[in-house]
Order: sequence, then C-alpha cells, then structure tokens
Amino acid sequence: MNKQEILQQIKTKRSYLCVGLDTDIEKIPTHLKHYNDPVFEFNKQIIDVTRDLCIAYKPNIAFYEASGSKGWESLEKTINYIGTEHFTIADAKRGDIGNTSSRYAEAFFKTMPFDAITVAPYMGKDSVLPFLQFENKWVILLVLTSNSGSADFQLMQENGEQLFERVIRTANTWGDTNNLMFVVGATHPEYFNRIRKIAPDNFLLVPGVGAQGGDLQAISRNGMNAECGLIVNSTRDIIYASKGEDFAEKAREKALLMQKEMQILLEEKNII
Amino acid sequence: MNKQEILQQIKTKRSYLCVGLDTDIEKIPTHLKHYNDPVFEFNKQIIDVTRDLCIAYKPNIAFYEASGSKGWESLEKTINYIGTEHFTIADAKRGDIGNTSSRYAEAFFKTMPFDAITVAPYMGKDSVLPFLQFENKWVILLVLTSNSGSADFQLMQENGEQLFERVIRTANTWGDTNNLMFVVGATHPEYFNRIRKIAPDNFLLVPGVGAQGGDLQAISRNGMNAECGLIVNSTRDIIYASKGEDFAEKAREKALLMQKEMQILLEEKNII
Repeated sequence: MNKQEILQQIKTKRSYLCVGLDTDIEKIPTHLKHYNDPVFEFNKQIIDVTRDLCIAYKPNIAFYEASGSKGWESLEKTINYIGTEHFTIADAKRGDIGNTSSRYAEAFFKTMPFDAITVAPYMGKDSVLPFLQFENKWVILLVLTSNSGSADFQLMQENGEQLFERVIRTANTWGDTNNLMFVVGATHPEYFNRIRKIAPDNFLLVPGVGAQGGDLQAISRNGMNAECGLIVNSTRDIIYASKGEDFAEKAREKALLMQKEMQILLEEKNII
Repeated sequence: MNKQEILQQIKTKRSYLCVGLDTDIEKIPTHLKHYNDPVFEFNKQIIDVTRDLCIAYKPNIAFYEASGSKGWESLEKTINYIGTEHFTIADAKRGDIGNTSSRYAEAFFKTMPFDAITVAPYMGKDSVLPFLQFENKWVILLVLTSNSGSADFQLMQENGEQLFERVIRTANTWGDTNNLMFVVGATHPEYFNRIRKIAPDNFLLVPGVGAQGGDLQAISRNGMNAECGLIVNSTRDIIYASKGEDFAEKAREKALLMQKEMQILLEEKNII
C-alpha cells in the first residue's frame, strides 16, 4: 500500500485508527473455545465489526508465536482475511544482520502479505535496509516506545542529541516518507513537538493509547501534520472491551468512540 | 541448562563451539530436496555429525519464519531432535513491552524447549525482564553486534560511556551471570578487553567468526576468562562447507578444525 492509498483511507473512514490484534487465547470469550481455531474466529469477528472504522490492523506476532506453528497458522488466516483494503502491520520488532533481516522481510512481505513491519534499530543500517527494498512496503522503526523501559537507553544523549532523535535522523537517510514510519509511544506527548521538527512528514505509529495511559487528544494535537501523519493504535480497550458473548458488539462501540473523536480532530485540522 | 552444566560441556567436549543453524532452503544440497521436510533433514544430518564437537546449537529463527507455519514446524522438529545435552539458543533478537515479551518467552521457553534466546535491548528493562523469570533459561542480550551497522548507534557516547557499555552495565542489574549473557561480534576483537572490564564473569556469545571475518584466536585471547566464558558461533563455514552429497562430512571436517583450535586455546588457559 502506498502513501496516497493510506491518506485516502484516512479521508474515507474519517479515522486514523489501527486496531491491534494481540489475541490472547486465555482472554478469548469462552463461547469461542469450541471453534477449531478460536484465535482466528475471534479475530474474524473483531475485523468484521471494525472494518469501516479503522484504517489499519496490527497483529502482535508474539501472541501467535506463543502457540508455535499453530499460532502461525492463525496469523496466516488472519492476514488473508483482512484483505487488501486496510494497511496491515506485522508488529514483530525484528532486526538482524543483513542476510537475516532479508529472511524476516521475506516472512512478512512475501510469505505473508503484510504492508509494514515494525523494526528495532539497535543493529543499524544493514539490519534495516533489507526491509526497505520492497515496493509499497513499509518499515516502522522503533524510536521512542510507550513502555517504562524506553527511558533506559532511548534518551541517552550525545552532543545535545538523544538516541531516539539520532535514530530518526539517521534512518531518514536510509528511507523516506514513502517507506519509513516511526513508532512513538502515546505515553510521551511532550516529545511529539520535538519529533515533528526532525520528522515533519513521516507517518508516526502511536501505540499506548488507552490501557497504557496515552491521551488521544494530546498526541493528536502535538503530533498531527497537514496530511494527518498519525496512525494511532488501540488494542486492549477495543478487543477486550467485553469478555462475554457481546465482545464484538462492545469492541465496535469502543472503536466507534475513537473514530468519532478522531473525526473531530481531523476536522479541526481541516484534513477532512 | 545451568551454568555448571555449560562449563561441564566445555570440559567434556574440549570445545566452546556453537553451530549456527541458519538453514536456507535455497542452499540445501539438491539430493535432500525430495524429503518431506528438507530443512529438518539437513539439520538432522548436520547435528548428527557435529554433536560431539560442539556445546551449543543456534537456529536462526528468521530462516524458519521465512517459510511461515511450515518453517515453524521444521524448527520445532529441529529443537526436539537436538535434545537436552546441548545448550540451545533461539537466535530471535526479540524484545517488546512487558506483556508481549512474556509471550515471546512462552514461545521459546515453553512451547519450544530452548535454553536461551537472543534479545534486543532497545526497549529497556521491562522488555528484557520477562525472559529472565524462567529458571535455568538465559537471555543473551545484543551488545556489540558483528555487522557494519553496529557503529550507527551502539557506539553512541554519553559521559565517557558508550551505548553498548551502558547496556552491559544496566542489564547486569536486571540479571546475573547465571541467566544473562551478551552478544559481542567477533569482528570487534579490540573491544573484548573493555567488555571484560565491565562484564568479567558473564558468558559472551560471539558470532561472526569465519564468513563474517572474525578471528578465533584474537577473540579468544582477548575475551576468555578463567572459566572460558565464551561460546563462539560458526554457521556458514560449517553448514555450507560443501553443496554436494558430502555436505555433512565436510561440515564435520570444518567443525573438527574449530574444535581442535579451541582445545589448544583452552589448554593455554589451563581450563582443560
């Protein structure tokens, strides 16, 4: 999916919502457990009720890998079920030496048809480049993550520049705004202005709204650019809105609330 | 596997060799292609001829993931075939927020019985801790990697301390020498003395000998401690020593050469 198609999605849906599919077999409602593949059944129902409200889906690969090859099959079915209308993000946080990153790129861009993958920057240029070689595919590089441990190394400073800033500046010499996005946690609203100074035009993928404490309005007002430039992810608030038979209905209600809030923020910026 | 068992392996085998299983379906000898699972058959034969020469095996997860759920099945068969005598390392370079890292830990320590996993440090403490909660399991944290991109961020400096040094110092407050090792590329022999000053007792996993240009003698003389403290990985030199029907025989010859060289280096240090 290219940038124009993402922007078109935002305008059509009046939304920049990404629904996280961190599907935990232990949190799935009991009445789904008799299905042959409860994880896929759960995802299918969540997707059915959120398709018109979100522009992206982001399966968290760890939750599938935890079940080994069976989990991988659930993931393959899920990505195929989503189809091509939505922007699909493999939240995998991969990154290795060049010949190995090439294999991860193959896993998520060829064996499975994801549009984007999250990548960890620690190993530098040759660990990221193989993911940037694919046309209309995207790297979403970790920059400033939403968790408490983000302070351990990401804020290290040399000559007035912090590590997360160096990652942005350096990575923008490897890719551009048509194949490179950055992960910036919603738990750091105060950093969005600084990040927009060095990455005015890149899309930012923003996790951490809701269960992790991030505030949609604060990050949108600080982080939105003239095209929107944000994809805001919500997972637990939506997919686990209810543990009962009404889980899909409640998920839709939560997603609809976010879409409505996003519509107002997009209108404020005259984007729609 | 605990530290005493690893040390015993080193003494028994007179070796600190780890054989990397980066098994590439395109590089497998043609005569194996008719097997139902050529990747597993290749691994099986490599394992059979190297068991007595190495203390560890390290499947590189990317090469299995590239084939999706089928690749994951080959990986499951491989780890089960290796058994419990050898130290088994999932070279996965995972790392995510706490609840997600827990799922990766489940994937590699419970669903599959690996002894260790390589972890990327970028996301900090809560991304690493979930892997350290398992008894007799190990985190092998990326510190100074073997690739050219290692210079992009790992050498960043604040108050005289470089990022890779901060990772070592900080991580040793989360774990200890019984559950935490560090990845240090063989392509950086000049750094081993510095690393030994801040991590005198941790095991170091050293990739990059052979195809990537690292020198076994240089890294062993600079990096070995009184217990050995090194696990040196070799992949392509061994598993792709021949592309023909004699691939296993040639793999054994290469592994034997490394074991003999390691035996001399262990004797020099009076470890055996």
